[in-house]
Amino acid sequence: MNTVHVAVLGGSGYTAVELMKILLRHPQARIVAVTSRERQPVSDYHPSLYGRIDLQCEPFDPDLLQKQGVQVAFGCLPHGTSIEAVGPLIARGIRVVDLSADYRLRDPALYAEWYGETHHDKHNLSHAVYGLPELYADHIRTARLIANPGCYPQTAILGLAPLLQKGLIEPTGIIVDSKSGVSGAGRSLKLTTHYPECNENFSAYSVGKHRHAPEMEQILADAAGGPVQVLFTPHLVPMDRGIFSTIYATPTRPVAETELLAVLRQFYAGKPFVRVRDGLPATKDTAHTNFLDLTVRVVRGKVVVLAAEDNLVRGASGVAVQNFNIMHGFPETTALL
Amino acid sequence: MNTVHVAVLGGSGYTAVELMKILLRHPQARIVAVTSRERQPVSDYHPSLYGRIDLQCEPFDPDLLQKQGVQVAFGCLPHGTSIEAVGPLIARGIRVVDLSADYRLRDPALYAEWYGETHHDKHNLSHAVYGLPELYADHIRTARLIANPGCYPQTAILGLAPLLQKGLIEPTGIIVDSKSGVSGAGRSLKLTTHYPECNENFSAYSVGKHRHAPEMEQILADAAGGPVQVLFTPHLVPMDRGIFSTIYATPTRPVAETELLAVLRQFYAGKPFVRVRDGLPATKDTAHTNFLDLTVRVVRGKVVVLAAEDNLVRGASGVAVQNFNIMHGFPETTALL
Amino acid sequence: MNTVHVAVLGGSGYTAVELMKILLRHPQARIVAVTSRERQPVSDYHPSLYGRIDLQCEPFDPDLLQKQGVQVAFGCLPHGTSIEAVGPLIARGIRVVDLSADYRLRDPALYAEWYGETHHDKHNLSHAVYGLPELYADHIRTARLIANPGCYPQTAILGLAPLLQKGLIEPTGIIVDSKSGVSGAGRSLKLTTHYPECNENFSAYSVGKHRHAPEMEQILADAAGGPVQVLFTPHLVPMDRGIFSTIYATPTRPVAETELLAVLRQFYAGKPFVRVRDGLPATKDTAHTNFLDLTVRVVRGKVVVLAAEDNLVRGASGVAVQNFNIMHGFPETTALL
Amino acid sequence: MNTVHVAVLGGSGYTAVELMKILLRHPQARIVAVTSRERQPVSDYHPSLYGRIDLQCEPFDPDLLQKQGVQVAFGCLPHGTSIEAVGPLIARGIRVVDLSADYRLRDPALYAEWYGETHHDKHNLSHAVYGLPELYADHIRTARLIANPGCYPQTAILGLAPLLQKGLIEPTGIIVDSKSGVSGAGRSLKLTTHYPECNENFSAYSVGKHRHAPEMEQILADAAGGPVQVLFTPHLVPMDRGIFSTIYATPTRPVAETELLAVLRQFYAGKPFVRVRDGLPATKDTAHTNFLDLTVRVVRGKVVVLAAEDNLVRGASGVAVQNFNIMHGFPETTALL
Repeated sequence: MNTVHVAVLGGSGYTAVELMKILLRHPQARIVAVTSRERQPVSDYHPSLYGRIDLQCEPFDPDLLQKQGVQVAFGCLPHGTSIEAVGPLIARGIRVVDLSADYRLRDPALYAEWYGETHHDKHNLSHAVYGLPELYADHIRTARLIANPGCYPQTAILGLAPLLQKGLIEPTGIIVDSKSGVSGAGRSLKLTTHYPECNENFSAYSVGKHRHAPEMEQILADAAGGPVQVLFTPHLVPMDRGIFSTIYATPTRPVAETELLAVLRQFYAGKPFVRVRDGLPATKDTAHTNFLDLTVRVVRGKVVVLAAEDNLVRGASGVAVQNFNIMHGFPETTALL
Repeated sequence: MNTVHVAVLGGSGYTAVELMKILLRHPQARIVAVTSRERQPVSDYHPSLYGRIDLQCEPFDPDLLQKQGVQVAFGCLPHGTSIEAVGPLIARGIRVVDLSADYRLRDPALYAEWYGETHHDKHNLSHAVYGLPELYADHIRTARLIANPGCYPQTAILGLAPLLQKGLIEPTGIIVDSKSGVSGAGRSLKLTTHYPECNENFSAYSVGKHRHAPEMEQILADAAGGPVQVLFTPHLVPMDRGIFSTIYATPTRPVAETELLAVLRQFYAGKPFVRVRDGLPATKDTAHTNFLDLTVRVVRGKVVVLAAEDNLVRGASGVAVQNFNIMHGFPETTALL
Repeated sequence: MNTVHVAVLGGSGYTAVELMKILLRHPQARIVAVTSRERQPVSDYHPSLYGRIDLQCEPFDPDLLQKQGVQVAFGCLPHGTSIEAVGPLIARGIRVVDLSADYRLRDPALYAEWYGETHHDKHNLSHAVYGLPELYADHIRTARLIANPGCYPQTAILGLAPLLQKGLIEPTGIIVDSKSGVSGAGRSLKLTTHYPECNENFSAYSVGKHRHAPEMEQILADAAGGPVQVLFTPHLVPMDRGIFSTIYATPTRPVAETELLAVLRQFYAGKPFVRVRDGLPATKDTAHTNFLDLTVRVVRGKVVVLAAEDNLVRGASGVAVQNFNIMHGFPETTALL
Repeated sequence: MNTVHVAVLGGSGYTAVELMKILLRHPQARIVAVTSRERQPVSDYHPSLYGRIDLQCEPFDPDLLQKQGVQVAFGCLPHGTSIEAVGPLIARGIRVVDLSADYRLRDPALYAEWYGETHHDKHNLSHAVYGLPELYADHIRTARLIANPGCYPQTAILGLAPLLQKGLIEPTGIIVDSKSGVSGAGRSLKLTTHYPECNENFSAYSVGKHRHAPEMEQILADAAGGPVQVLFTPHLVPMDRGIFSTIYATPTRPVAETELLAVLRQFYAGKPFVRVRDGLPATKDTAHTNFLDLTVRVVRGKVVVLAAEDNLVRGASGVAVQNFNIMHGFPETTALL
């Protein structure tokens, strides 16, 4: 069987360890390199991998990765750092699935506005493919650079795209009220994620200022065929993992739940990782899986979409492997069920 | 000093134990009776009260309560059961602070619609006072029967009433997206509140069907001077206590955050338990207190109000004692700071 | 490839859903039947399995299971109920991995003493094999009936057996102080596992009376070649899963940590699921895996063994599949990494 | 009424905020100063105090504190820093309740051994009183310097002292297996207390090396009238607050639970904050209170003492105020019920 040699860039964080666990179960992937600023065994960063992976983290070196035969690199680096690694890899013929936000916004001006820095790799940006398989599988297949989608945006996009595409909801006045487990904030130490601060606590953050809002709007505009406007409010939930989004939209005409559910079901038929359910979703039903669960209600004249996913798997490392599978013609579900 | 003899009805649940802890600190209240279906020591129900209260729970008997000199009864009974107790107490001259929902909706037809039963104590319903001190202190002072407000409604009402009163937001299209800790679901055993089901889980429930929606609408209509329409979505958060509401409304004209904050600050000046803050609230800042914390933002043309409280204290037992204080002319903050 | 048809008995609980998730990943197992008292889809019991398993639970019927071609039945029934199912299955040539406690204690008198009932299947009891692969792999291979080991006992047994076997610690005066996540208490509703009761709480239970004590003693006696005496104290930890045991024993002679670690390492060489570590274990390093992590310290003249595992995987369903693999000559780690 | 002016040193941490909440309820204490390295409002450090305290933190300055009329200073500083503050305060006639470990070990050599630094305030060390009211109330009354006891040691000392005093248990071979909520690790950021690391995790730390072991031994030696030897194992529990200790000791003669319970009850008669219970304690029963709950069992020939407390209240700030009350002749329970 064909085995693809892969590297994990930025091996010390939560998306990296989740990714490595999935890849270790993948019969056609072999992790041949893990990078990090510190030279130390991968299992020192992640004791859960003790005895399961025998690699030493090495500082990023594209020549070395090429010499090691890396065919695909998964970037688990922070935005701004990732952009430095992608160019050299693409130049060496290594395909990249970039889990950072550096190649998600197509318009460099939007990147500059929301990320506070000029985008200095416009060349690769121009051919990057937004890695949401349910919408862009055809482009993913042949992509050299995948911009792996953000965790929050996936819930909003997969919940709304079918309804916008059919013209069933207005493209303005959309509210995405999202709630995320704490692992979404990463492994860097911050007071807000210090246990006694966020445990037994619920709070909002970055109200109206979160960088995932323009990402949602960009992709939903594809579906709507015109501009979409989203008010996005993220919140922090005292749990490890999971995102739940409660999404409010205005129907363009009186519409029944059954019709909306049917539209969603039709759209996701044959797509193995989106489950349209009659009942209300819950993050725990999706925990440690690549499933995104959806349902829809009509209340007081509004359409209410409810979506749940695991932020580390579906929201990051699982969908990255789903993209990897599509890129190589492997069954889409390999290592993900 | 004047001491008021009080009874706690329905002593086995979470609002009851919270109430007793507050009352035990109250220099002018003495708990003389606790009722429950089972005859057993209060501290058997609540080991945290071991050594602090020496009473035995007794089945509800209004004559006995009268004989024990009870002047005020706090009802911690479920709705439908509470209504059976209130009439006999009022008839015996005992004032009641009813923490159930039985006397909150003024319109019996609305009660029948949402609670599925005809309201058969219309007489007392007609003079019950909705016990939200920041809005109805004048009526609370002399009330014989207080309908203690619901936990969720307080966040929506205190967040929106000042803005509706000033005509700054539209009375329709209001969305209240609320998140509650698990104690809000009570002490009765249910699969949804079994630890391994709701821990590390976030979910919505009763979407568009929760009984607190008409309660919010009724009280907000007082403030707005006309009908108000609320879409209410409650969610369950894996934590013991705390409610956080993210509230979306449409301004009637372009408006700045500073103006909205000033309106809130002016409204709550001199009201000790509502804290209008510049920063975002968080449930933990209000945990185990009677404070309700508020702020407001303007995002993408919408007004976003964010409110946090402790559902057991501010949302139930604390505000009950605040009402008790007002009823007796005690300083409003007695036993609550 | 050879596919084994399996049934899951008692499909509604936590060990059953964990087991089904593992079996769904197993290339040589096919779940053909799931039993439960209620006839309803498996995914109604377990929404996480929505779209992943299309079976309906059926009441237990050994003839039907035989007709469905079941070769191995995994029993996830409570003790006392399990015993009723095992006999009829064995009689029909169906091999059983019983996750209940019914066939763990070899001495029926001990069963009667600790479980309060006479053991009325002494015939099958006499040939049941205790399913701890690291100790009894040879017997597991050919067993018709596996008594899958208890969650707590595995930590004590795997931690102590090598040291007892070598005569390095005294067989008496052993203290096993264990801490378990709440899923270990099962899915039946109880006040002690109601979220607001056990969240943010730590407590001991069944002090000196837990049924896993005689199980530990029985198996450790095999290793020691004589009676072993264990004082076992279980505690409940506010988390979903994980068991941590801190075990105190008296060395038979002055001994160094390095020697003890070497003995453990030698014993578990080639055994893929026991990881002897230099550092202190933590339950999270083993969460959702079949690993049991161990280390040992010498403090104030005592040997302190520290062990961690996931109670649902290693402690129940994972080790059940490990036994299943050994029974069929599959690689021991199939579906478990 | 007599009001005591107090200062809180090191106002940014968890014991400080807990202490301030208690002091704000104390009718005879007025907080007149809070110190911290940064000049900023107390409520910026602790949003829960918003609107409740109007002080600005100031860098430590003993002259300023004297000028502000401070009569008692509560030290919430880390050990090693605290020692720098105590001398200057005592010299100015300010009594100190020091919550750090700097004055707990009477023997400077022991301090040097366990804290890695020479103790350079032997003068004050020589007259410091260990602030455990149930044992040393007489000395506390007149003390100028109180060494407030450690959180873990209180559970061991209050659980064992009565039994050692009566000669009912051996002074050697004692095992204290303790479990603590995360707030015990303080507010400084560490990977081990980063939410996604310690949530849903249970682990041991500092096995055989924790500084509270010599503190236990020193005080228990007072009770035993001779040296005591303790093997102490602390663990981290995924919850905010609470310590639970399971303590194993060897009886000096066969002894019944009832006798042991009677000894404990007699010892703590009239001591309002130690509750000897028949049932097993649980941390949640003591949460947010100054109670320490105890019981005892006899299992397999060992005495097992089980103790629970709130580490921030009983374990630190609550007992500090209990000491303060005794020092001033206030009722011992003032502000603590």
